[in-house]
Amino acid sequence: MPTPTGSGGAAGPTAADDVEALAGRAAASSRAFAQTAPRDRARALVAVGDALAAAADELIDLAMAETGLARPRLTGELKRTVVQLKLFAETIVDGAYLDARIDPADPEFALGARPDLRRTLVPLGPVLNYAGSNFPFAFSVAGGDTAAALAAGCPVIVKGHPGHPQLSIRTAAIVAEALAVAGMPDGVFQLALGQEAGVALLKDDRIRAGSFTGSLRAGRFLADVAAARPRPIPFFGELGSVNPVFVFPSAAAGAGAAATIGAGFAASISGSAGQLCTKPGFLFVPAESAAELTRAVASGVAGVPEQRMLNPQIASGFVARQHTVLGADGVSTVVDGGTRLDGDEQGWVTPTVASTTVAALSAAGSAVLDEAFGPLSVVVAYDDVSELAALAAELFPGNLTSTVFLGEGDESALVHEFVSVLSETSGRVLFGGWPTGVAVTPAMQHGGPYPATTSDSGTSVGSAAITRFLRAVTYQDAPQPLLPPQLRDDNPWNVPQTISPPGASATWGALV
Amino acid sequence: MPTPTGSGGAAGPTAADDVEALAGRAAASSRAFAQTAPRDRARALVAVGDALAAAADELIDLAMAETGLARPRLTGELKRTVVQLKLFAETIVDGAYLDARIDPADPEFALGARPDLRRTLVPLGPVLNYAGSNFPFAFSVAGGDTAAALAAGCPVIVKGHPGHPQLSIRTAAIVAEALAVAGMPDGVFQLALGQEAGVALLKDDRIRAGSFTGSLRAGRFLADVAAARPRPIPFFGELGSVNPVFVFPSAAAGAGAAATIGAGFAASISGSAGQLCTKPGFLFVPAESAAELTRAVASGVAGVPEQRMLNPQIASGFVARQHTVLGADGVSTVVDGGTRLDGDEQGWVTPTVASTTVAALSAAGSAVLDEAFGPLSVVVAYDDVSELAALAAELFPGNLTSTVFLGEGDESALVHEFVSVLSETSGRVLFGGWPTGVAVTPAMQHGGPYPATTSDSGTSVGSAAITRFLRAVTYQDAPQPLLPPQLRDDNPWNVPQTISPPGASATWGALV
Repeated sequence: MPTPTGSGGAAGPTAADDVEALAGRAAASSRAFAQTAPRDRARALVAVGDALAAAADELIDLAMAETGLARPRLTGELKRTVVQLKLFAETIVDGAYLDARIDPADPEFALGARPDLRRTLVPLGPVLNYAGSNFPFAFSVAGGDTAAALAAGCPVIVKGHPGHPQLSIRTAAIVAEALAVAGMPDGVFQLALGQEAGVALLKDDRIRAGSFTGSLRAGRFLADVAAARPRPIPFFGELGSVNPVFVFPSAAAGAGAAATIGAGFAASISGSAGQLCTKPGFLFVPAESAAELTRAVASGVAGVPEQRMLNPQIASGFVARQHTVLGADGVSTVVDGGTRLDGDEQGWVTPTVASTTVAALSAAGSAVLDEAFGPLSVVVAYDDVSELAALAAELFPGNLTSTVFLGEGDESALVHEFVSVLSETSGRVLFGGWPTGVAVTPAMQHGGPYPATTSDSGTSVGSAAITRFLRAVTYQDAPQPLLPPQLRDDNPWNVPQTISPPGASATWGALV
Repeated sequence: MPTPTGSGGAAGPTAADDVEALAGRAAASSRAFAQTAPRDRARALVAVGDALAAAADELIDLAMAETGLARPRLTGELKRTVVQLKLFAETIVDGAYLDARIDPADPEFALGARPDLRRTLVPLGPVLNYAGSNFPFAFSVAGGDTAAALAAGCPVIVKGHPGHPQLSIRTAAIVAEALAVAGMPDGVFQLALGQEAGVALLKDDRIRAGSFTGSLRAGRFLADVAAARPRPIPFFGELGSVNPVFVFPSAAAGAGAAATIGAGFAASISGSAGQLCTKPGFLFVPAESAAELTRAVASGVAGVPEQRMLNPQIASGFVARQHTVLGADGVSTVVDGGTRLDGDEQGWVTPTVASTTVAALSAAGSAVLDEAFGPLSVVVAYDDVSELAALAAELFPGNLTSTVFLGEGDESALVHEFVSVLSETSGRVLFGGWPTGVAVTPAMQHGGPYPATTSDSGTSVGSAAITRFLRAVTYQDAPQPLLPPQLRDDNPWNVPQTISPPGASATWGALV
């Protein structure tokens, strides 16, 4: 196996020559990998998961040292990463994801005799995956985008995040080794380090798709690079999200409701030091309950211990956002958690809570509306519940999640309209829960209209994520031996095939 | 109903104020249209098809006058357009396209108790569809992109092609009327005319996706506009394709093979005056059979009558391409069909055939390799069949179709490798047929790597085209009455729902 970084395993940036070699190896492995049987790739994904699980102690120690995240959180995240790899194994093993369609030749076709047509999904080719900072396992080297692309049959180059280089190198070595032992072609998994290498690879014609988890600024920059290439490629960036939560009067009224909601919100904004893309940034509450709910939130965050932020860059960005938000006109500080910088420029934080009104929030605009990546959230008092739908549509046009708390049986026309707005502006709509903690399942959607993502045609969590890395090819009148296995009459992989019945087209329109 | 163009039905360009009104009406209709039942939209699509069929005589006369295409071709194309609308009705009527997924709450989930998650596809919102010039029915106002977007539940604004404005206005009126009678919301279908209106609409934040059929230059310009918006949107451009055809020695050798292939090629490059995106631009033949095959092609085109090109702009572009191709070093003229301009600047053509060698073609580059939109194709003699795979990968990186002619039972490793290259560079791979004439079926793929399209994640022909206009939303722990019908337990639309069995996640990875 080549060394994962192309640079002898060192944590320095990947050199230009090595970038060239990485792209070359990915492209060279592409066809052989695309032609592996889904069952064999599934076995390889399980092997990768098992290898990571076996190295848990070493990997978690590395992750703690490089990210400041706590052991229980990292233990859970590594387990999630392993389960995620196995979910994708499960997703591909029966070959249903190939969407094999067969339209037999039809001499009676309404528009004249029709040839034999067989369509299947095939991998896009080499995928460049930019790792995120905040999930050093689940959205990094062996994370969801890597699992989805490998499951699809695409070679992967991960551009490692500078926040955890040693962990990235070690994880990459384990992944590459497990894939090799499982018989996958050389070059299907590689690691690059450094911003220049990341951009150079994105411009390389051999790279056929990009995926990214990170900031709006970096993600939009890279999306623009991908779109401006001589041959543009799809770029799936998961950027930023403020995940508003709306408490309806019917939910705030019940006995104990304020305490429960306040405590839940406090926990959701505090976990992982608020460095989650699904952290709720705003809690909209009825004006008449605002004082009580704000007290409950303040009480909830009071006991949260100081946590280290992921790295000095994120800490300094968070300090700037704190300053801007708390200094905005009409914004009051409820709890100032501050940010303490230690001798290594690492930031240590406890949650910060602010409060404001709808009018002040609208007037402040992006100063307050933009994402604060860290434990800062804003309680917003509203006067009239009937204004919420228009407000959500205007202030929150694109989010990963939106949440509404409703009283039992509150299903008025106003609620229906509000839920419609949330479904138009969000990838996931929650009822009476908290958006942090994203289940890795077939029905998960982790995406959303821009700026939540650069492309909301896919998801970056859950088994549906595989579709981002596939395109379709149709074979017309092909001899059986020249068809890919999933399209043959003898169906050697035993995949589900959707076969149009003879004369099906004659009935078009007759059913309705 | 508003007048289709927003300009009193006249064929002049849509004014800026009217552009604003069109976008406003599309956005205003979006939610109500998204919430119509698939069965009701299916009925509406059938009604549109029936209304167009009922107006066939009038529409075909208009199309003949504006495009110069012949009555039999236009009669077939209108029939195809009607069948296409009904295919999309059939595609949505059972609701399977919604991909409804339900993961019931799972207290035993491997990563901790999991909420109830329900995921469905929903329409993107208003779609702007740029009509093509060469299919005044099937890729124009009521064409495939319109049918797919309406089927998905997206309001459509068609930017009509200037080559057939009166036909566009009349078709739009029939479509809008049929949709209104079928009970669809006002504003779900509108027409805009003029280049400025087309660009202004693409920049309008209320437009959520674009689709386009036309030239590489215009398509790339619009794709760049879509990508550069403050909020980027997906843009599905079907641009250009040269659709190479490769005759293997095993196919050229048989008795009568040259005559059959030559006649088929001649017919495929001549139909619709060569103004088809699937027109084969190159015929690669073994050097030893080149003379015979070239004679067969020349003989095949000899009897083709003069045809009018679509419009003066296309004619002048074709004259320029003829001049460039026939003047390139190493290119010989086999048949010079010329281009006769009449008093109205309309171009009249018979097929032009050139011949060259692989070496001269490689040396000439884009001068010869670029698409010639019209009846001009090049016969290319190759010396060594083992060079074809590398040649196809290098010279033809993105095409709608590629075709190979093989002898009976020719399934050598070299053939397998060649077919792999074609499947990597093309949306459709044909064996012993001609790429013109695209069946509208579930297994059709009409797309391909750039520059065949700006995004090969979808198809612009066949029922799979609907996926381009959908995104996903997940509902977490939603009360039943607030779920969209397709995700409810009582399943009032009776759509297929994929429900994860309890504890399914516990088995992940166990199967492989």
